[in-house]
Parts: sequence; C-alpha cells; structure tokens
Amino acid sequence: MARINEHYCKLSAGYLFPEIGRRVRAFAEANPSASLIRLGIGDVTLPLVPAVVEALQRAALEMGTPGGFRGYAPDQGYDFLLDAIREDDYARRGVAVERDEIFVSDGSKQDSGNIQEIFGVECRVAVTDPVYPVYVDTNVMAGRSGPADGEGRYAGIVYLAATEANGFVPPPPTERVDVAYMCTPNNPTGAVATRAQLERWVAWARSSDAVLIFDAAYDAYIQDPALPRSIYEIDGARDCAIEMRSYSKRAGFTGLRCAYTVVPKELRGTTAAGERVPLGALWARRQATKFNGVPYLVQRAAEAVHSPEGRKQTAEQIAYYMENARRLREGLTAAGFRVFGGVHAPYIWMRVPEGQTSWGFFDALLARAHVVGTPGAGFGPHGEGYLRLSAFNARERVDEAIQRIGRSFGA
Amino acid sequence: MARINEHYCKLSAGYLFPEIGRRVRAFAEANPSASLIRLGIGDVTLPLVPAVVEALQRAALEMGTPGGFRGYAPDQGYDFLLDAIREDDYARRGVAVERDEIFVSDGSKQDSGNIQEIFGVECRVAVTDPVYPVYVDTNVMAGRSGPADGEGRYAGIVYLAATEANGFVPPPPTERVDVAYMCTPNNPTGAVATRAQLERWVAWARSSDAVLIFDAAYDAYIQDPALPRSIYEIDGARDCAIEMRSYSKRAGFTGLRCAYTVVPKELRGTTAAGERVPLGALWARRQATKFNGVPYLVQRAAEAVHSPEGRKQTAEQIAYYMENARRLREGLTAAGFRVFGGVHAPYIWMRVPEGQTSWGFFDALLARAHVVGTPGAGFGPHGEGYLRLSAFNARERVDEAIQRIGRSFGA
Repeated sequence: MARINEHYCKLSAGYLFPEIGRRVRAFAEANPSASLIRLGIGDVTLPLVPAVVEALQRAALEMGTPGGFRGYAPDQGYDFLLDAIREDDYARRGVAVERDEIFVSDGSKQDSGNIQEIFGVECRVAVTDPVYPVYVDTNVMAGRSGPADGEGRYAGIVYLAATEANGFVPPPPTERVDVAYMCTPNNPTGAVATRAQLERWVAWARSSDAVLIFDAAYDAYIQDPALPRSIYEIDGARDCAIEMRSYSKRAGFTGLRCAYTVVPKELRGTTAAGERVPLGALWARRQATKFNGVPYLVQRAAEAVHSPEGRKQTAEQIAYYMENARRLREGLTAAGFRVFGGVHAPYIWMRVPEGQTSWGFFDALLARAHVVGTPGAGFGPHGEGYLRLSAFNARERVDEAIQRIGRSFGA
Repeated sequence: MARINEHYCKLSAGYLFPEIGRRVRAFAEANPSASLIRLGIGDVTLPLVPAVVEALQRAALEMGTPGGFRGYAPDQGYDFLLDAIREDDYARRGVAVERDEIFVSDGSKQDSGNIQEIFGVECRVAVTDPVYPVYVDTNVMAGRSGPADGEGRYAGIVYLAATEANGFVPPPPTERVDVAYMCTPNNPTGAVATRAQLERWVAWARSSDAVLIFDAAYDAYIQDPALPRSIYEIDGARDCAIEMRSYSKRAGFTGLRCAYTVVPKELRGTTAAGERVPLGALWARRQATKFNGVPYLVQRAAEAVHSPEGRKQTAEQIAYYMENARRLREGLTAAGFRVFGGVHAPYIWMRVPEGQTSWGFFDALLARAHVVGTPGAGFGPHGEGYLRLSAFNARERVDEAIQRIGRSFGA
C-alpha cells in the first residue's frame, strides 16, 4: 500500500499564486467586460531585449548543425556563462568566485526550494515574516515543521517579524536556528538590507554556525551603488552563506528560465558525529542526480545579458519598471495610502485601508478597481494588513491603476 | 549548527556518469592523440531537426515582441503542447488522457528523481537490477534505505534481478513493495516488456495497492507496433501507474530539456489513517511549489516534434540510430560476443569477456580500443559482467568502434 508523504497535508492551502489565479479567473469570467490591470504576480511584461533574442536565434541555428549541436550540458553550466557571471556579477564588485562554486539552474524558485534537501530534517529553520512562500512550504513538505496554527504559522519554524518598526528588515534570531532564509531586495516588502544589517546577519551566522540562504533574485533593482548586491561583499560571508541570483527579473527570463546558486568552498555543515562536510559537494551531488542542466540556448541567452549591449538594454528595462514603482509610490501616497518599498525593488508594499484584511482588500480592489494585487497575508501572518503591488506592467496601465485605486479607495 | 542530510553519506560513490567522465578525461589528457569513440553516456549526436529549429527561431522572435512575449508558463504546460501530446502520443494509440493529468517538465531524470517526494518515507521501493541509478539514489537521499552492502545494494530497497534467464524483464516482486520503478524499453539492458509482461505487472500493482512508476523515455525506439508504447494501453493501469515520457532521445532534446509525466485521476495513495488521496493533487502541489515551467520556446519546439514534418524528421533520426544498433549487435556477435538489446532500444548490453569485471573491461576498452562504454556494474550488482554501448554516434564511428573492439578483444 503506497503511503503518501503526509507532510503535504500540513500545507495550509494551495500555493499562493495559483489561488490568486483562480480568484482572478472567476472574476474575469463573471465580468467579461472588465479591463483588469494585473499588478499581482511578479511577472515581467517587457519583451526579451534584442541582445537576448539574437543569442537565442544564433544558438537555435547552431543546434541544427552537425558541428554546432550540443547534447547534455555540463552539470554546473557552460564555462562561457560561468565566466560571464564571475566577471560581471562578482569581479566588478570586488568579489572572487570560482567556476566550480557556481551552479547554473532553471530558476531561483527551484534552487531555494531544493536547497533544504542537503540539510538534516532536524535543522531549525528561520524565515522573515512575511516571506516568499517557497522557503516555508518546501521545509514543511520535507518534515521540518509541525502543523500550522490558526494564523498559518508552522510549529518548529522560527518567524522573524518584518515590521514598519524595523523597516521590514528584521534582526537575526536570538533563539537557536540552523538555517535562515533572507531575501533582499525583499519580496514581498520591497525593503533592502544595508551593509550594516548584512554584517550583523553574517556575524550572527558565523557565531551560530548557521547557514544563511541569501536570495538576491532582485539585486538588479538596487539603485544605490553603495548598497551591497552580493552577500559576499560582506567579510566572512563565504564561511556561512549560499547565494542565489536569477535572470528572471533582471532580464525578463521568467518564461526562459535561468538562475544560479553560489556555494563557497569554505562553507560546511556537520554530521551527527561532528564531522565537517563541504556543502558544495552535497549540492553538486544533488544537482548531478536530480537535475540535467539548463538548455544550451538559454545559457547563451544569459551570457548575452552580460554583454555590453545586453547590460545596456536590460538596464533600460529596469529603469522603466523603477519609474513605474516611483509613480505607484508617489501616486498612492498622494491618494492617502501608507506605502513602503519600490525604491530598490519592483514591489510596493501598501497598508490596506483601516479595518480591512489583506484578502478582503484584494477582493475589493479586484471588484471595484479591477486591479489585481497580492494579499500580504498570503506571505505570512505579519503580511496581514498589507497588499503587494508589482511595478511590472506597461506605464499607462500603471498610471491607470493609480487613478482607479485613488478613485475607489483614496482619502 | 547546520546538520547535513546524512542519507547522502550512504551513497556509495559519485553519480555514475560524472565518474565515467572523470576517467575518460584523465585518459584523454594522458593520451592526447587517441581518437576516442564515445558510446558511453546515452547522449544523442544528431542535430536538432529543421522543424524544431524553425519552431525555436519563431518563438525566440515572438518573445522579443510586445505582443508575443510570454512570462511564467502555466504550471503544467501550455495547452498547445498538452493537446499535441494527448493526440499524438495517446489518442493515436487508443488511450484517453486529460489535459490536467499531464505535467510538462524539464526532464524525465528530474521527474523520476522527484516523484518519490510525494510518497511516505516508510514506503518500500523496488527496482530492477541493473537499473538507471536515479531511481535508487533519490530514494537513498530521501532516507528510504539503510546503508549499502559490499555489492552496492542498499538495505531496505527490493532488487529484482534482470537476467539472461528472464530476458532482462523480471517478474513483479513476491514480497511487500509499495512503489516500483520500471523502465521499458530498458536503460541499460535494451530489453522491452511485452504486453503479457506489462499485464502481469499491472495486475500485481493493483492487487498490492502499489504504485508503478513507468519510465517510457525510450518508447520512440520500439519497432514493433504491436508492443505497447504506454502503460495505459494495459487495462487497469490508470489505477496504479504513473508514466514518464521524454523528448530527449526521441527528438534530440538532451540539450533542450522537455519531458512530461502523466498522473491519472484514479490513482491514489493512502494516509496512515487510511484516507485515500489523489496522487495527482500531491504532484501538482509539488510542481507548483518547486518548479516554474518549461521555457515557452522549448514547449513550442516540443510541439513541433508532433507536427507531420517533425514526426517524419525525428523518425529518420531514430531509424539512423537503430541501424547503428543493428550493426553493433551483428558486428559484435560476429566478433564472438554475447550481445542483448538493440532491437527496440538504442542500447546494446554486451557480456564482457570471461574473467573480466565490467569496470575492468570498461578500462581495457578505453585503453586498447579507445572506445567509451558504460560499465554494467555502475547500474547495480546484476549489471556486473556486462557493458552498455549506446547507438548514439555517427555511422562511421560506430563501424570503426565495432572493428576496433573486434581487433582488440574478438574471438
């Protein structure tokens, strides 16, 4: 008799974004003439830049020739991409990373969901609250939690409250934690950690012998060059941090799929007997066994993002989205809302009107303004009272959304 | 203190193919003038067919336009591909499969490695021996086994011997098993299960309330139209079987990445309390949480495989590889070897010369004939005494390999 993995039964509800999709589809079917503005799911809207399209086309042609065809990709990625990453994302910021410390993958969602597999089931996990749901759900599915309480908090998981008081960047945990997830610039709050805050986190991880899973999927949106883009800009981070970066939001790859994870050689975990084991070797074994590489033409497309034209073209797209973010911040503030984020991140984190819940405001926003947001409570109990809006849309739709929200809900 | 997942420490060695890669690289570096013929790793060699290249090019251009850009793909795949699969792979064989029973993914290796996550850790797993290593390794990593013995057999895993006596298609287990993996046409032995054998397996799974994981990654190589291509051609299989298919070997997608898994609605697992839970819902939750879809342009490429031109062009490639397989079978038989497989599969399973081990013969073949095979023992204890050769190479290289093997080792 095939017994199921009953940890799945603890998951409080469907994965957040499919649930939003279901509500939006139901509304759209009931209101076919409504012109919806989708600022919910954080999906990019601008087309692939010319440098990327050209790289895809070239690689597709190559794959159709006897001399240019490539089968299975190297386990961790092609050298041409690894070297572009080392140079453009690290050396440029004064950080040295080796080729074999980089693992090219098909997404940061996958990597941040799979990374927990290399840790023992007894590890105590901390997340900020609100949080990108994948970190929590994948640990629940693996058995690192008890059941959820009425507010959706799982027993055994440590929640670090991200609040207005701490600028949505909570300090490190004070209780015992073995693995902590940190996303900055943050999804969903749009907050970004300063150098001093990151130093405090690295110091905590080193002194606790904990591992920091640093999700930098939105690093391209950081506007201030003085803010760290990589955790490895902090001294000592190679001893305690795994970093994830993605091409999804940086270059519109949500429908193309490419990301990477860095596991420094110094980083080690511990066996029950006290032996120190390099985490990079475990991750390499995990990927060699359960993954089969990113398509050659997608790796060529990612390489093109690092070219001079690619960098210029993708920077223009990011500037476009960040101008959207500025308008959302200013427009909603002018309409009387309290608004956070949107300065170094493509997300606006707005307080819902007094007396409303975030799912209630999500439904009201959909019904009255025909605007799709993401309810803060979907990201955890401390997201209650907030709604996330994304800056990923056409300028005129963003302007229209600001007007509609102001008209329907403004002060 | 971050404890590691110590189940990884049970894994006897590196994943098989990287280990072969290391030995081959070491030989090539020491013998730079040797002209190696690679019949080891089962990677295709012919370029992508024109229908696929054109689909990739069209989709790349589309992704560069405001109207044609696509972000995140639907969780389970685009309808255009789901419908092509339903029509071409199932309806054509008289099998009905619903759209929401199909899960498009980036590889059967991934799917066959990840599927165990939806089962309880207490499930007893059976594999044929020799076996594609992913089935075993992923269950070991998840804690469904004890340590390995001297021959590489993990305690708690049930091994079903595939031998010359049973034509390399073992009968179902006689002891209690909850989840069984079956690959046909088989990697590595090249054997194919008949309808009667599959009926026996389905009857066993139904009577044991077990789940059969049916890996049909090589179905396109079946030459006899009377042989089942899908497990769902067997009555009752929808109650007990999950099926995996791939574009890798069928259309040269090893460097492009597309596959799919079918989980029928009837299929259920059981909780400790005896509740019956649809496995499709668990797999959907797993994929929604830990996967983010196959690139749009790759799904368009897979769709093109099902077009009339795509079917004709890929059939020609398969015929080419199967002519290679015929030559390997006949040439090696003429040279005095005992040879199996290669009739409905691109793999030749040859007995190594009397008194040699399979790793010993692998090394000798490399050193004396400069031919790369895959040692049978790498696939499990019952693979000892055999070597796998793949038919994936250029005709003249295959002919040359046959001559070299005959010269160096022939009777």
